[in-house]
Amino acid sequence: MNIYDVSKKAGVSIATVSRVLNGNPNVSEKTRARVLDVMNETGYTPNVFARGLGLGTIRTIGIMCSDSSDPYLAHAIYYLERELRLSGYDSILCCTGNSLENKRQYFDLLRSKKVDAFILVGSKFIELRAKDNSYLVEAAKDVPIMLVNGYLEGENIYCTLCDDRTAVRQAAEQLLSGGCNDILYLFTSYSYSGTNKMKGYRDALMNLGLSVREDYIQNCPKDVLETKKLLSRLDEEGLHFDAVLTSDDALAVGAVKYAHAYGRKIPDDLSIIGYNNSIYSICTDPEITSIDSKVEALCTTTVTTLMGVFNGCNVPSRTTIAADLIKRATTKFH
Amino acid sequence: MNIYDVSKKAGVSIATVSRVLNGNPNVSEKTRARVLDVMNETGYTPNVFARGLGLGTIRTIGIMCSDSSDPYLAHAIYYLERELRLSGYDSILCCTGNSLENKRQYFDLLRSKKVDAFILVGSKFIELRAKDNSYLVEAAKDVPIMLVNGYLEGENIYCTLCDDRTAVRQAAEQLLSGGCNDILYLFTSYSYSGTNKMKGYRDALMNLGLSVREDYIQNCPKDVLETKKLLSRLDEEGLHFDAVLTSDDALAVGAVKYAHAYGRKIPDDLSIIGYNNSIYSICTDPEITSIDSKVEALCTTTVTTLMGVFNGCNVPSRTTIAADLIKRATTKFH
Repeated sequence: MNIYDVSKKAGVSIATVSRVLNGNPNVSEKTRARVLDVMNETGYTPNVFARGLGLGTIRTIGIMCSDSSDPYLAHAIYYLERELRLSGYDSILCCTGNSLENKRQYFDLLRSKKVDAFILVGSKFIELRAKDNSYLVEAAKDVPIMLVNGYLEGENIYCTLCDDRTAVRQAAEQLLSGGCNDILYLFTSYSYSGTNKMKGYRDALMNLGLSVREDYIQNCPKDVLETKKLLSRLDEEGLHFDAVLTSDDALAVGAVKYAHAYGRKIPDDLSIIGYNNSIYSICTDPEITSIDSKVEALCTTTVTTLMGVFNGCNVPSRTTIAADLIKRATTKFH
Repeated sequence: MNIYDVSKKAGVSIATVSRVLNGNPNVSEKTRARVLDVMNETGYTPNVFARGLGLGTIRTIGIMCSDSSDPYLAHAIYYLERELRLSGYDSILCCTGNSLENKRQYFDLLRSKKVDAFILVGSKFIELRAKDNSYLVEAAKDVPIMLVNGYLEGENIYCTLCDDRTAVRQAAEQLLSGGCNDILYLFTSYSYSGTNKMKGYRDALMNLGLSVREDYIQNCPKDVLETKKLLSRLDEEGLHFDAVLTSDDALAVGAVKYAHAYGRKIPDDLSIIGYNNSIYSICTDPEITSIDSKVEALCTTTVTTLMGVFNGCNVPSRTTIAADLIKRATTKFH
């Protein structure tokens, strides 16, 4: 018997059950009575939400990410911990690596410690095959699961997403309207976020009635020197490109280094756009135009949403935040 | 009554007590009997070490660092988790921020979860005032505390250090023998590691009978653009320098950007050396000569030492690892 069973049996929403547990006055007396009756009948003992409300809680959130050495994830962890601390919650972080087995092991470890909620950071935490995520959907019956820039459907699962697709589409449109004709798109991953970014690139071309040439979409490791190597090879093979749009700043740094090595003038001869507006984007000369994926806003929104869940508020299961294009010297429109 | 009291009362080392608990055969029968007698007399129940040995243990190590978004610390966390997992241990990471109050709170949180040991990552985790570290010395009576590139004396505290002082001295010597006369030294922190690096700079000058000019030692935030600004200001104020030696790669990137902005030719007119051999060092053109502080070796050694402690081996309380100078295009000797 869990809170879902109570809500189903009482014919009210989970938020309403939570409000009753919370003593929130925004519940009619009739509804409150019905919920309490169901609880008495079924012997339901509030656990998760009660813990979230500070009743017997350890006031600790489990944060999981695949790789803490990735700059994007490292910053997300930093912001999440800060926001949770401001809300009076401790956090425990587990870096799981990319194997599903390890992810599940760490998840079970944190569950056994009775954390009040999970925050899973990054698109890569969600597996491509639905059945590989069923342990999360199942666990969410007992404990809220928050995803930072990852997407998974399920009750008690809440996603805060950056609108990567629109961001990449708009960046590509700016390149096209600035006179670039042959935009190379470099991506690192087929994750939810990675796939959306790629769709944005396709959207921009298709909206203008241009054809998408598959050899202008290239998979690339998230590595500066590998990116430089890839672009050098494509150049030597005779592929013509006047812009490089990337899914990660590390790739954009590699593009700048390729341009230096091959005597291509930035931005007159080659425009470059990065993603994440990370420290990488200001390491090079010229500095790199980059899409700010708003990691701080994603993290503060995630924590605000979680506190809403604990307080029995109606919170959206999916919140999307718009990205910003930060214009620097690798594009003509800066 | 803890393991130290037992060792004192039995007149044997802690490692010997641990060997007895471990059933390790390298203990004489006489010693074994004496230790067991003391345990029986005093009612001592093995806890920490027994847990470390898998008896009732949660097989989980608490990792603490001040800021997970720092690239050096982020990589250390990555390597530590990997090594611990290979040894069959889980890890819980807490990012504490820099305030002592938060560090202590997180430390207490992890202690209450009965972790088998602590690994504190980074020189900044240790406070400058001895009394601010006494909670660690005290806690080490019950649970091993490992420091990664931090230094604190105390029983059951084990430090794995990079020989920062020698590394900086040798780098400065190479610059001097390569014809640089006015080496600017930029540093970010007065931590144990930060202080040692600075000593290395002074050593190099003093060994050659050169005077140390204090205006050539400058404190600087760990920030690319702030470093560029500082060097630009020093240049405009008329300070002459033909080399910039730094305590962190981010500062070296700032130095490259200053050189680009002020038309100084690297390395003919200005040599630059970074520290940590991080991803930063290959983002710029030219790429940056940098001291490899061996973060991976520090982490694997820390975990090996910890497993030695758990197994009752005699392990050194302090291990020092030599750094390497990775020569790239910002120095003439590359």
